[in-house]
Amino acid sequence: MSTYILNINCPDQKGIIATVTNFIHQKSGNIVYIDQYVDRENELFFMRLECEFMNGKFSKAQFSAALDSSIAKQYNLEYDLYDKDYRPKMALFVSKYDHCLYDILARYQSKELAVDIPFILSNHIDLASIAERFDIPFYHVPITKENKNKAESRQLEILKHHKVECIVLARYMQIISPKLIKAFTNKIINIHHSFLPAFPGAKPYHSAYERGVKIIGATSHYVTEELDAGPIIEQNITQVSHLHSIEDFIAKGRDLERIVLSKALQLHVNRKVLVYKNKTVIFS
Amino acid sequence: MSTYILNINCPDQKGIIATVTNFIHQKSGNIVYIDQYVDRENELFFMRLECEFMNGKFSKAQFSAALDSSIAKQYNLEYDLYDKDYRPKMALFVSKYDHCLYDILARYQSKELAVDIPFILSNHIDLASIAERFDIPFYHVPITKENKNKAESRQLEILKHHKVECIVLARYMQIISPKLIKAFTNKIINIHHSFLPAFPGAKPYHSAYERGVKIIGATSHYVTEELDAGPIIEQNITQVSHLHSIEDFIAKGRDLERIVLSKALQLHVNRKVLVYKNKTVIFS
Amino acid sequence: MSTYILNINCPDQKGIIATVTNFIHQKSGNIVYIDQYVDRENELFFMRLECEFMNGKFSKAQFSAALDSSIAKQYNLEYDLYDKDYRPKMALFVSKYDHCLYDILARYQSKELAVDIPFILSNHIDLASIAERFDIPFYHVPITKENKNKAESRQLEILKHHKVECIVLARYMQIISPKLIKAFTNKIINIHHSFLPAFPGAKPYHSAYERGVKIIGATSHYVTEELDAGPIIEQNITQVSHLHSIEDFIAKGRDLERIVLSKALQLHVNRKVLVYKNKTVIFS
Amino acid sequence: MSTYILNINCPDQKGIIATVTNFIHQKSGNIVYIDQYVDRENELFFMRLECEFMNGKFSKAQFSAALDSSIAKQYNLEYDLYDKDYRPKMALFVSKYDHCLYDILARYQSKELAVDIPFILSNHIDLASIAERFDIPFYHVPITKENKNKAESRQLEILKHHKVECIVLARYMQIISPKLIKAFTNKIINIHHSFLPAFPGAKPYHSAYERGVKIIGATSHYVTEELDAGPIIEQNITQVSHLHSIEDFIAKGRDLERIVLSKALQLHVNRKVLVYKNKTVIFS
Repeated sequence: MSTYILNINCPDQKGIIATVTNFIHQKSGNIVYIDQYVDRENELFFMRLECEFMNGKFSKAQFSAALDSSIAKQYNLEYDLYDKDYRPKMALFVSKYDHCLYDILARYQSKELAVDIPFILSNHIDLASIAERFDIPFYHVPITKENKNKAESRQLEILKHHKVECIVLARYMQIISPKLIKAFTNKIINIHHSFLPAFPGAKPYHSAYERGVKIIGATSHYVTEELDAGPIIEQNITQVSHLHSIEDFIAKGRDLERIVLSKALQLHVNRKVLVYKNKTVIFS
Repeated sequence: MSTYILNINCPDQKGIIATVTNFIHQKSGNIVYIDQYVDRENELFFMRLECEFMNGKFSKAQFSAALDSSIAKQYNLEYDLYDKDYRPKMALFVSKYDHCLYDILARYQSKELAVDIPFILSNHIDLASIAERFDIPFYHVPITKENKNKAESRQLEILKHHKVECIVLARYMQIISPKLIKAFTNKIINIHHSFLPAFPGAKPYHSAYERGVKIIGATSHYVTEELDAGPIIEQNITQVSHLHSIEDFIAKGRDLERIVLSKALQLHVNRKVLVYKNKTVIFS
Repeated sequence: MSTYILNINCPDQKGIIATVTNFIHQKSGNIVYIDQYVDRENELFFMRLECEFMNGKFSKAQFSAALDSSIAKQYNLEYDLYDKDYRPKMALFVSKYDHCLYDILARYQSKELAVDIPFILSNHIDLASIAERFDIPFYHVPITKENKNKAESRQLEILKHHKVECIVLARYMQIISPKLIKAFTNKIINIHHSFLPAFPGAKPYHSAYERGVKIIGATSHYVTEELDAGPIIEQNITQVSHLHSIEDFIAKGRDLERIVLSKALQLHVNRKVLVYKNKTVIFS
Repeated sequence: MSTYILNINCPDQKGIIATVTNFIHQKSGNIVYIDQYVDRENELFFMRLECEFMNGKFSKAQFSAALDSSIAKQYNLEYDLYDKDYRPKMALFVSKYDHCLYDILARYQSKELAVDIPFILSNHIDLASIAERFDIPFYHVPITKENKNKAESRQLEILKHHKVECIVLARYMQIISPKLIKAFTNKIINIHHSFLPAFPGAKPYHSAYERGVKIIGATSHYVTEELDAGPIIEQNITQVSHLHSIEDFIAKGRDLERIVLSKALQLHVNRKVLVYKNKTVIFS
């Protein structure tokens, strides 16, 4: 069987669920999963479904063409169609911290994370040995005030060369340029080490310590031009107390960051995230 | 508009979603919510949907008749149909502990819980004053070894008299008889003060303390003939440590019990729980 | 036995633990609990201990006098001494929301919360019937722009008359004046319906919804002149998703607020909170 | 400065805290951390303290001798004394699952876990390449019904040769023999993939799925002769629903196991776990 994932959004309208499910049914497909959501305030309809077709009977291109020539037009659907077995190419950008990198690589190695990782890129040389340990190409692209423009062009070149489809900032610690964001809209996933919108920007654990909070968090989000303000994919928290120093916050935070980032990656890779109005719909 | 809740289960079959959604569409209904689940192992299909019809155009009886004479038969559907605005009659059985009772009554009073509470019943007289405080009839039905049969008949009589549809055991502390369970299958909701299946039966906090666990829990489930073994609706936990005495476990447990039981009641009252094979499907 | 709670803070200094524990030992007291904390950055020492003395052998006044004339002076101790059995007088300020009020009253009624509640005060009349239901005096002190000063004087008068020691703002929804804050420094406990420092001020659930967060929270803190910026006592969170409307946020938030506020009250009443530098030390 | 960790347990007795803190004070030590716990039911006293001495002024041997000849005897103390900077030798036993292994090695590599790992041992060859990747010796000790005795002797030989002090069963999947348990009492740390005491033994995720629980857990504990019944060090849980298959339980469980085991290892390595009566005291 071929399994496809179809993600739809369109204006909310009567009979839309019946229309889409009928379409699949008529094409001899079998729906094995459906989840939908209506934003009543904005009158928008969102749907994610997985459907099976007999192997070779209905290619992704045929599916897409059939949608375009029928209900997509009629109902004003925006949609994304994916082959469920396809493994997206995901680049890892890192800096000097290794905990998220190790975590992603272990999940990659043990097939938990169904992606291809064509390379690891860093502005520092420190983590090259880990890349080597896991037999993954490593690009060292240093960034200074002076060479920022050139460095970004080099990054884009490498991304294009490897046909990368999404980028993970696994504690990359550098501001991403609008050019790169534009080329990978809603495809650059960052992990921020605070419970956003509290403590955006640099040194959030220090700020959390200063404020005397009893809970710290981590947030994974898509990168937009406004710093740490993109659509939130996943958040999680852990308890702290007066007993914990800033170093303890950082150590506890490492576990949070690992868990939150890897959860967000799973959701993204499995096409379960839909973005609109700077928010996300996360399908089950 | 009239809003109905339709809960379905049937053998899984191709095109079932299209069939049901089409049916609603053809009757001029608008689906405002749909959630479904397929148990692939047992080839069973479950669906919960909410749909709106123009007021007076399609009564609950008409809806039911239309289903029966068409797709229900054809697709072997078992279904429950509810008027969304209807408030079920829910009896409260208590013993001597008041924390769950207070919690339910406060939610009832502030309209959080959309039910009618025709009475509170207890084998002890201790909580009568709370019933009085909230202007709810109180029945005192003492239970002894000798009078158990007679007491149960009295309970059934009171339940029938008030046309009760579901029963909450808000720390009732008595074994429910098979007769009562049969009359209210999957309609008696209990709160057990442990993380089932750990520590069923009496004194679970004592057992948890003895075992030295680091987490304690509470479980809300439908009552079946096997003690504390019915379909689980909701569970939650809280952390404990060596610092906590059994009394601390009990105190912390009270908060758990309140939260877990009230969550389970909300799910039940909103028709979001489907029971099969001694498990529950909980719709979103 | 008489049991006392002794909370100490002083400059950190060598031998301080030995000194204090020796002092108790020499006075024939038995330490039944000790917890301490050193803030190394600021070189401050904090300790909470509970100790027992033979009944009538060492009154609170004697204890205090003995401390003052010996180690308190020598080691520059600031301390608070409490009789463990004493129930503080706690006033409840409410507005129109009843969920925190019901929760506190239920815990008060069932002796979970070891306080006296001399009265409930509100700027609205809505919750008077609940006060009546629980046989607690109710003061209606309306607040308008024009009468604010006079209303506060009336509040202070009532508080003084009842010898109130701490105030709970159980969703009181009014800004507290500096005069009242000064009279009850670190003794006014507020519940704010967000995960501070995210979303201070009005309508935090709306802001959280707008931002698309995946977790919402509640925070209990002492009231200081800066709005929602006082020392945090307790925080907790719950998960939300795109499926939840603002109304759902508010409903889920009610459970959070209940739990967080009642936890904070327990900590405060049991003298487990020490405030310094706008942060709290929470003893176990 | 030399920093020592002193863990004490003894019969509870008046003045014990003053006695111990005085002892340190008189030896010119400075207490930088103290935590204690009294089990009132069993009249037992537990204490963990960290204290600093001028370098070279008071060796661990001198400390121990001084204790033995004074308060240890007088107060019937059992104690353990550790040099805080010492890194214990920790052996890793694995089978075929790699997720806990990767997690521990990443933390070891990034210095989060202050141990030496002299070797990895497995009954299967599958994970040898990971050991190689991290430059850690790998021993393959196959186990069959026939060679079990011999295999265990070989294990003990390897453990002795490397002067191993504690063993981590990172999903080792084999029953440990009484001989090995006796040689490493309270020094073999297992991760069990359920919320003990629910679902001990084999296939706990399958049992949890069958029972329809809404929460699954993982438990790290010291290995004792009774299977999965040893003193619990750490537990954690995650929510599941009817949507999750057994495979989903296993995948979610992997994250739990990683977090729970690594937390337990930190507690053990930092000498924060005291065992008695098949329970643990976990110091802060």
